[in-house]
Amino acid sequence: MTERLLTPHELEAALRAVGAERYHNLHPFHRLLHTGKLNRGQVQAWALNRYYYQAQIPVKDAVIMSRLATPELRRAWRSRIVDHDGDGPKTGGIARWFKLATGVGLDAGYVESLTGILPITRFAVDAYVNFVRDASVLEAVASSLTEMFSPGIIAERMVGMLENYDFISADTLAYFQPRLTQAPKDSEFALAFAKEHAITRVDQEKVINALRFKCDLLWAMLDALYFSYVEPGFVPPGAFKPQAS
Amino acid sequence: MTERLLTPHELEAALRAVGAERYHNLHPFHRLLHTGKLNRGQVQAWALNRYYYQAQIPVKDAVIMSRLATPELRRAWRSRIVDHDGDGPKTGGIARWFKLATGVGLDAGYVESLTGILPITRFAVDAYVNFVRDASVLEAVASSLTEMFSPGIIAERMVGMLENYDFISADTLAYFQPRLTQAPKDSEFALAFAKEHAITRVDQEKVINALRFKCDLLWAMLDALYFSYVEPGFVPPGAFKPQAS
Repeated sequence: MTERLLTPHELEAALRAVGAERYHNLHPFHRLLHTGKLNRGQVQAWALNRYYYQAQIPVKDAVIMSRLATPELRRAWRSRIVDHDGDGPKTGGIARWFKLATGVGLDAGYVESLTGILPITRFAVDAYVNFVRDASVLEAVASSLTEMFSPGIIAERMVGMLENYDFISADTLAYFQPRLTQAPKDSEFALAFAKEHAITRVDQEKVINALRFKCDLLWAMLDALYFSYVEPGFVPPGAFKPQAS
Repeated sequence: MTERLLTPHELEAALRAVGAERYHNLHPFHRLLHTGKLNRGQVQAWALNRYYYQAQIPVKDAVIMSRLATPELRRAWRSRIVDHDGDGPKTGGIARWFKLATGVGLDAGYVESLTGILPITRFAVDAYVNFVRDASVLEAVASSLTEMFSPGIIAERMVGMLENYDFISADTLAYFQPRLTQAPKDSEFALAFAKEHAITRVDQEKVINALRFKCDLLWAMLDALYFSYVEPGFVPPGAFKPQAS
């Protein structure tokens, strides 16, 4: 890179530009989901596949925590794990997503078994865990910055899904409410970390690319859902098949 | 292995036999430490080197946590990280060991810099973190089982050090008191995990060998301290040199 160092403000603007172009709120599958254009089986497919993502989030965060050098940084990161794993049985984000998946009519054991998820879902989620292990700590932290954009999509989703699907209740969507405060807290920390530690333009590009990578993997998960459950509707062998309704 | 599966009781007995033979309470350096035979510089060398071990414990535990498959297991393991990283500034085991290291007269910045630790200390501690990443989850968990033996050495140490060194107060040794309850809680969980998951004799041997490995690395750290600070007293270039007293 021959370009000059970005100011912290410019770096943040560059990151927000990545979100404006690539965040998965723009994906056609989400547009269908939020506007009530999916049937129950398609919503189930979404909830089921996303469950694997949710279930791996604390794994991803424990990998990052294992790479942070001080109790202070690890404590800050630990709160993400607490948010998702909870403080006891049936607490935390994974349990709440599980409630969503079963709330839309999936069998509990089937969800937990993970046997019905699309292979692409597995590849994308596992790529995330591998990335935070293999990339630099700065990139690992930066890859979490999609949370800068999540309150918008969550608000849109909660309103859209409650309005448009009679099989979905506010209780089923209990996952999302705490995320409206957790995500900004987490993304503020990660953004401050990125601004502080990206001290060369090369580092700054790595931060931007880490966020692109994360947007790409969230996008790819929706590509796979669209391909298998919307159009052309080819479900891979072994993956979840919605019951005719 | 052609031998039969051990009963859970026999497995536990085999693990206790490893401790009886190899746990570092038997090391000559600890005998000197606990009976008041070391001078202040030698106690400082011990506290300084052990600080690196303490500082890496939550790193090691975050690696293990990242490999545990359920929120329930991760929550149980998370309590170890909370014990060592604490819940805020100056709380937790690392902060308490830091207090011990500075309490015996070491400079705070010097301790934190880690520049004075023996290379063998670094190799041994890093081997531990690498082991829990690269070995099976069962072996990673089993390597923590030295905690089955730690209440004995801690009790011996607290009494011996308070009695024998006028530069050590109960306050300086604040690290150890909570360990008397934390370690048994943790080792009970790990022992139950090992008994449950070691379902072949090959697995059981791996569990026993993981504990041997852990005993070996704790022992090696004391070998290095003895070699450099007791006899023959060769301090490697760059490592901590006690001030003449």
